[in-house]
Amino acid sequence: MNQRLALLNLTIAATFVSVLGYASAAHAQSVSVLVAYHSGTGNTEKMAQGVAEGAKSVPGSSVSVKRVGEVSADDLLSADALVIGSPVYFGNMSGEVKTFLDSWAKMGLFQDRKMRNKVGGTFATGASFSNGKELTMLTIQAAMVMHQMLVTSGGGGFGASATTGPDSPGIDEKELAEANALGKRIAEVAAIVKRGNAK
Amino acid sequence: MNQRLALLNLTIAATFVSVLGYASAAHAQSVSVLVAYHSGTGNTEKMAQGVAEGAKSVPGSSVSVKRVGEVSADDLLSADALVIGSPVYFGNMSGEVKTFLDSWAKMGLFQDRKMRNKVGGTFATGASFSNGKELTMLTIQAAMVMHQMLVTSGGGGFGASATTGPDSPGIDEKELAEANALGKRIAEVAAIVKRGNAK
Amino acid sequence: MNQRLALLNLTIAATFVSVLGYASAAHAQSVSVLVAYHSGTGNTEKMAQGVAEGAKSVPGSSVSVKRVGEVSADDLLSADALVIGSPVYFGNMSGEVKTFLDSWAKMGLFQDRKMRNKVGGTFATGASFSNGKELTMLTIQAAMVMHQMLVTSGGGGFGASATTGPDSPGIDEKELAEANALGKRIAEVAAIVKRGNAK
Amino acid sequence: MNQRLALLNLTIAATFVSVLGYASAAHAQSVSVLVAYHSGTGNTEKMAQGVAEGAKSVPGSSVSVKRVGEVSADDLLSADALVIGSPVYFGNMSGEVKTFLDSWAKMGLFQDRKMRNKVGGTFATGASFSNGKELTMLTIQAAMVMHQMLVTSGGGGFGASATTGPDSPGIDEKELAEANALGKRIAEVAAIVKRGNAK
Repeated sequence: MNQRLALLNLTIAATFVSVLGYASAAHAQSVSVLVAYHSGTGNTEKMAQGVAEGAKSVPGSSVSVKRVGEVSADDLLSADALVIGSPVYFGNMSGEVKTFLDSWAKMGLFQDRKMRNKVGGTFATGASFSNGKELTMLTIQAAMVMHQMLVTSGGGGFGASATTGPDSPGIDEKELAEANALGKRIAEVAAIVKRGNAK
Repeated sequence: MNQRLALLNLTIAATFVSVLGYASAAHAQSVSVLVAYHSGTGNTEKMAQGVAEGAKSVPGSSVSVKRVGEVSADDLLSADALVIGSPVYFGNMSGEVKTFLDSWAKMGLFQDRKMRNKVGGTFATGASFSNGKELTMLTIQAAMVMHQMLVTSGGGGFGASATTGPDSPGIDEKELAEANALGKRIAEVAAIVKRGNAK
Repeated sequence: MNQRLALLNLTIAATFVSVLGYASAAHAQSVSVLVAYHSGTGNTEKMAQGVAEGAKSVPGSSVSVKRVGEVSADDLLSADALVIGSPVYFGNMSGEVKTFLDSWAKMGLFQDRKMRNKVGGTFATGASFSNGKELTMLTIQAAMVMHQMLVTSGGGGFGASATTGPDSPGIDEKELAEANALGKRIAEVAAIVKRGNAK
Repeated sequence: MNQRLALLNLTIAATFVSVLGYASAAHAQSVSVLVAYHSGTGNTEKMAQGVAEGAKSVPGSSVSVKRVGEVSADDLLSADALVIGSPVYFGNMSGEVKTFLDSWAKMGLFQDRKMRNKVGGTFATGASFSNGKELTMLTIQAAMVMHQMLVTSGGGGFGASATTGPDSPGIDEKELAEANALGKRIAEVAAIVKRGNAK
């Protein structure tokens, strides 16, 4: 093989490495998922852990789980996806979660829509059937949409939910599976969006 | 006139007094209206005053206006009607108003539905058009419905609202008129319900 | 007894009859409740019957149950209370129920708010938990509130609901009891409002 | 140059063409945006045209505008993004738009979530301020979320909206600019998602 040919071979090899390297990144896009929650009795915390497990099952993802009061602006800005969970208090998210969302204004996240295109999902726990879990998930999603996040569901209709009152105490296997499915899906969508943005 | 006739006349007179007294009460049923609000910049407070003015215009009504943080269980229990106002923070009521609603649980109002059949209305202020004023009013109403209050509107579609951002700064005459109409209507409905309950 | 005395006696008697008649009416105020529903599979119809049974249990109430497509303006105008039920189709009331609500405009019910102060309640059935039953009830209530009806709940958080999919097929006893409780409560509130309006 | 070398050169060239072709596609990803609307008076149609203009301004996008009754399953399946607009009828989308969403079940789109990861946006027109435009946009978004679409906003808080009644007749410049911004943003997000999915 002459020199020129050797050079060409090298170029070809480099090109393939680059292409293969890319393809491999594509199959395990590094994404960071933040699960933020408030929990009064431990039920929403258990669901948060379930969401985190699901997100961790996606290759390339890194996941952190924090109480809403401990989430900083940097936590939010560095995440590719955000899943927020709340107990139902009178047909809506808890005051703690609402106050957390309000704090985004002081963090300066609304100006220039700094949360734009991050992927968002929600989960909720409540004592009874049809007592506000939907409204809790949908109003958290409404706030996310205003920040121009990309909102989607996984697990259940609008996200993952669990009934925790006398008729169905605690978090059962099916509810935990919903939480898992939500976390997995949010991480997968975040990987798609991150790859798409990287181009 | 003999004694028996005199007695009958007395009875008749008493009966008519009672009936007339009742009719008069009917036209000016004494009702107490509580206007509870949170205000960050003074706009929602101005709307609260407008709601109060409207409620006061109904004969027999007494009206109090309080910030949500100053409302006690007794304030709530002694009111026949409750009108709640909030600024829009990210497409929903403010954390302050949500925390106020959550506090009803600690006040023991949910057990035995102690707020049952009290009349409820809502108002909201927000910087832009279609940015959460509806959702703010509707989610406050959802909490009221869970307490088995009787929810209705007046003024605007779901209650009274004002746009306060650059495109329409402050509270204008039309918005104040909406607030007035809401207060008037809530007091009128409270009078109907109180009369109906008194039977 | 002389003529004058006889006349007085007659007056007294009439007065007491009127007063007693009123008191008796107060304990069994005649109210008319309309239960309007759409049902694709029969589940929402079964809930509608449950709501009707509950309403009938209130002394003095008369109840009619109709599919939304068969409800006339007269049906709506002559009712003191209206309970609307819908299956969940994609997180919201069915197109049939929405079209029914839209038809109120053509019926001329919005002008002069002809439905004002009628009592409103809602119920919903859906295949899964947290899949739109809340949103279905709350958006029907939103339409009622715009008509200045008096909206309240009974049974469950926002009204009565049933999960009818694989995890909980059909309408079970607890769900039927919720429907009963809703119907009973709506009829009771309608009686209060009617008495209050009659004064 | 011998044959083997010629073949290698060809391979290299093809590789670079492919890589460059990809990069170039990345800057003008071909995306198809469907704008589906119902319009009673022409206002929502005008907003639909505004959304379409905005989407067309994104290089590589192709846009179609159809009345909801004319949208086929193929139209939906072949679109990368879907923007749905509705007039407000009693605080919610019109029966026509609801019936359109319901028809997705018969089209078999819910099974296997065939609309998954398509990008969704919404717009609404209504006669008055705070009279249901938010609820219309949010309930359309709720249906999209159930289909696991990726929902976001642009233009206004939850999407684009216009007030068309006596206080602000027709579609003004600012409202049309909101529609433009919504269309542009939805096409841009669809391009990101499509690139991310292609990897």
